[in-house]
Amino acid sequence: MPQAPQDPSFARTERTVPTRARERAVYDHETVHAILDAGYLCHLGFIRDGAPVVLPTLYGRVGNRLYLHGSTGSRPLRMAGETTDPGLPVCVTVTHVDGLVLARSAFHHSINYRSVVVHGTAHQVTGHDEKTAALDALVDHVLPGRAADSRPANAKELAATAVIRLDLDEVSAKIRAGGPNDEPEDLPLPYWTGVLPVAPVYGAPVPADDLAPGIAEPSYLTAR
Amino acid sequence: MPQAPQDPSFARTERTVPTRARERAVYDHETVHAILDAGYLCHLGFIRDGAPVVLPTLYGRVGNRLYLHGSTGSRPLRMAGETTDPGLPVCVTVTHVDGLVLARSAFHHSINYRSVVVHGTAHQVTGHDEKTAALDALVDHVLPGRAADSRPANAKELAATAVIRLDLDEVSAKIRAGGPNDEPEDLPLPYWTGVLPVAPVYGAPVPADDLAPGIAEPSYLTAR
Repeated sequence: MPQAPQDPSFARTERTVPTRARERAVYDHETVHAILDAGYLCHLGFIRDGAPVVLPTLYGRVGNRLYLHGSTGSRPLRMAGETTDPGLPVCVTVTHVDGLVLARSAFHHSINYRSVVVHGTAHQVTGHDEKTAALDALVDHVLPGRAADSRPANAKELAATAVIRLDLDEVSAKIRAGGPNDEPEDLPLPYWTGVLPVAPVYGAPVPADDLAPGIAEPSYLTAR
Repeated sequence: MPQAPQDPSFARTERTVPTRARERAVYDHETVHAILDAGYLCHLGFIRDGAPVVLPTLYGRVGNRLYLHGSTGSRPLRMAGETTDPGLPVCVTVTHVDGLVLARSAFHHSINYRSVVVHGTAHQVTGHDEKTAALDALVDHVLPGRAADSRPANAKELAATAVIRLDLDEVSAKIRAGGPNDEPEDLPLPYWTGVLPVAPVYGAPVPADDLAPGIAEPSYLTAR
């Protein structure tokens, strides 16, 4: 079925269609973008010496492209740089836990979550303009408004930072929401059943010891 | 330096010693266990058709062993089962974000976090007793006390559930805590600097629509 232009979706591929719980998989850009924009920490998977490696790292999004960064000395960034031509095959996964789902049976326990899995090939970003825009996007992804309210990277810092980009192309989201799905015969069992919601909550900002007096908390911080 | 017997550590290997920020890496069992026990969601990395795959999944810990589970139809579980002899090379990563670190310079922005990365080979658990103990550990890892307060898996459910184990052997933890590390020349800059703490917070339990009246919230739930 052709997609309406106003509701674009990522094409399903063999590896983005799950073998289990297919009804939880979604592919529309809006949902995928919303899940990505609700967080800033991803888990980056790549292959090193024939074995899988999964590292937590920050990301930013610009349209249908993700940017990840790190030291030029870090392994995946270096590997992406060393293999500029073919690029580095990666999988980037973002997961938000929304609740613990307590069913009457141990078997039907679950969690409510929203996740996005991106398969693709990461390439190092070398152009100055794309690199600085990517770093701004990374900072603003964690805390919108912060990039303009900090000192931009200088030439030395830019040279020490590697940025890789990953196009959102082979992508799927998965969402589990709602209450437990108990077996009908378990309904009379005397166990409490329902959902325990969970979400990240921000505490009061802790100023650095050397923060000069008179510098007020910025509004983008208070908004969190 | 030999480790004191009361403070055992995981042996450092080439892939558990980071190329960057080595001072953040720790190897003692106590720290690794504490980070693993503070969460229940991991990101499981494995290789499929030559490409990395990273999937979010739940885990439990019993001593120096992790257990992960899923449907017998799910890809990594099936792959671990299909390769019982050599096992499935995996990387399991657990990350907790503790705060956003706002430096005066964009370059020194960071996050406070605790993470554990486990490299190893996952094997399918086939013995009945280890499998049921692993499933109890999985449920209790998410919510201590819940396994005994739900209906255990029956034979059909056990058969539909695959469990894999991963020994904690090649393991490292990484911790970043504290405030920003600005360059001395940046100290006079007029940007707010400090840490915005963040932590998962549980909301009020939401009973299932079909919860029978008279079943009180269990104490292990209220404790969260």
